[in-house]
Amino acid sequence: MFQKTTANSCSNIAFIKYWGNRDAAQRVPLNDSVSMNLDHATTTTTVAFDAALNDDQVMIGDQAAGDAARARVVAHLDRVRARAKIETKARVVSRNDFPMGTGIASSASAFAALSLAATRAAGLELSERELSMLARRASGSACRSIPAGFVEWIAGSSDADSYAVSIAPPEHWELRDVIAIVSVEEKKIGSYEGHAAAQSSHFLAERLKALPTRFHRVRHAIFAKDLALLGPAIEEDALELHLIAMTSAPPIYYWSPGMVRVIQAAQEWRGNGLAVYFTLDAGPNVHLICEAKDADQIAALARQVEGVQQVIVNAPGGAARTIDEHLF
Amino acid sequence: MFQKTTANSCSNIAFIKYWGNRDAAQRVPLNDSVSMNLDHATTTTTVAFDAALNDDQVMIGDQAAGDAARARVVAHLDRVRARAKIETKARVVSRNDFPMGTGIASSASAFAALSLAATRAAGLELSERELSMLARRASGSACRSIPAGFVEWIAGSSDADSYAVSIAPPEHWELRDVIAIVSVEEKKIGSYEGHAAAQSSHFLAERLKALPTRFHRVRHAIFAKDLALLGPAIEEDALELHLIAMTSAPPIYYWSPGMVRVIQAAQEWRGNGLAVYFTLDAGPNVHLICEAKDADQIAALARQVEGVQQVIVNAPGGAARTIDEHLF
Repeated sequence: MFQKTTANSCSNIAFIKYWGNRDAAQRVPLNDSVSMNLDHATTTTTVAFDAALNDDQVMIGDQAAGDAARARVVAHLDRVRARAKIETKARVVSRNDFPMGTGIASSASAFAALSLAATRAAGLELSERELSMLARRASGSACRSIPAGFVEWIAGSSDADSYAVSIAPPEHWELRDVIAIVSVEEKKIGSYEGHAAAQSSHFLAERLKALPTRFHRVRHAIFAKDLALLGPAIEEDALELHLIAMTSAPPIYYWSPGMVRVIQAAQEWRGNGLAVYFTLDAGPNVHLICEAKDADQIAALARQVEGVQQVIVNAPGGAARTIDEHLF
Repeated sequence: MFQKTTANSCSNIAFIKYWGNRDAAQRVPLNDSVSMNLDHATTTTTVAFDAALNDDQVMIGDQAAGDAARARVVAHLDRVRARAKIETKARVVSRNDFPMGTGIASSASAFAALSLAATRAAGLELSERELSMLARRASGSACRSIPAGFVEWIAGSSDADSYAVSIAPPEHWELRDVIAIVSVEEKKIGSYEGHAAAQSSHFLAERLKALPTRFHRVRHAIFAKDLALLGPAIEEDALELHLIAMTSAPPIYYWSPGMVRVIQAAQEWRGNGLAVYFTLDAGPNVHLICEAKDADQIAALARQVEGVQQVIVNAPGGAARTIDEHLF
């Protein structure tokens, strides 16, 4: 019944952001969002249920998970156990190929990979939709890391109808996300607190009112592979996430001097004819969105910006998948 | 009839910002605003109408004014001439004691001083209210530099009823504005364009809806000399100016890496028990608002922040006034 299973899952960058919940406990969001999976920002997770264990063992990289991270993983294992009708404890080892807590959505790839690995290890065969919903309950944006390529998260109205679907496969569009990593420090205020605070921003209602039009623009831009249409829409949406955060009570600041410097540089490059647009997550890093033909040049330019510590070039990534190489 | 006249006027820092016009031509604003005059950021202007002149001569500092600045000054002289029913050309020399175009509202002090000097030089004796309305037509926030101390600009509904009044004299409250000058470059997008663009932000209506409550909070904080009440309100309002600008179409960015660095530093100092709050104008500099007892310490700290080029400590300033020392 129990089979050691390893899954690999991409992180994703949202073009229309998830910010604020209709149901915080189940991570049912206030609005539809859309994202691209990132093929060079992935998590690999191995899960084995083992009757010999008295407690769940959770390792992140080479270290035992901290209390908060462990509690989230155990809670997710409990969801899987409830579904599989088992009580067996599990050993979990997880490894990112990118730094955590820096605005690259490490919880997205982590809980997508954990959802797939843990369900398979428990003998369950969930559909993509079921898997997406399961991942969502642990970390909202994780639901977008289950399907392949360009992904839409249908907000739905409750736990029962909120899940992500692929709207275009990775090979549909040779888009790139050049991540300029400005800080590898853990952010002070996590997304969970940010989502909760969103409701206190007096601008939230106006954002939600404006989103359907922007959402349509972004979807159309992806279908039409039109970067000049996509770019301004994603910049608008990224700034809105930050402004909702900054107008929350108390305000949450995700900006940093380095972030502003990279954005200003990108605007200058664009002024010089390079088709590059920025997006941001709830963290200090800047995601520079461009077409494949310009990615090397933009990565080289980004490396020269003061304060940029590392640059990761991502192509559209595939769906969460099981792999044969285990971490233990 | 004509008397060479020199006036000195303070710049002002808004606690509730002026952003967006009901009537752009006459600078009738969308909302009431409130400010403090800055006693160490002033403009001195000498005006002499002279029948021997064929054209207006306008000097800023030791240089002839550039075309755009000259045109604004001449247009204002025309307002004064129309009122005085004269056609005589004037010589104008103006000098700031602070760098221009850096988010310190140089046009506010400049047009307040010009309004007073030019009307007196033309033989007119305007009331404070009339002078405030005249200055407003040249540069909206200049109307707030006419009265003394802490000033409220009553938006009004038209050119005929939009003017500023003092709500407390300079000596009412030993407040300080420690300006951290991050850049002395001219800003790329002037306030005039910013005001015009404000209408294109889909968040503007919500801002205007929220303002009366915040305005009341700020006025009450000034009356009660309550910095802990004033501070969060002015930070909210400063961020809102920037977010309205950033959500205008096309977006206008007034932020800079140095600005963010100073804000983060100020938040850290506050975390350590220092009562300091920031505000911003449509420029890169940061205004650190504190009480007099903390001003020296905050100025010393600000000087140590990377990228800060100069620090100017301001107490509440007086009304626009004539002085006896002429610039020519």
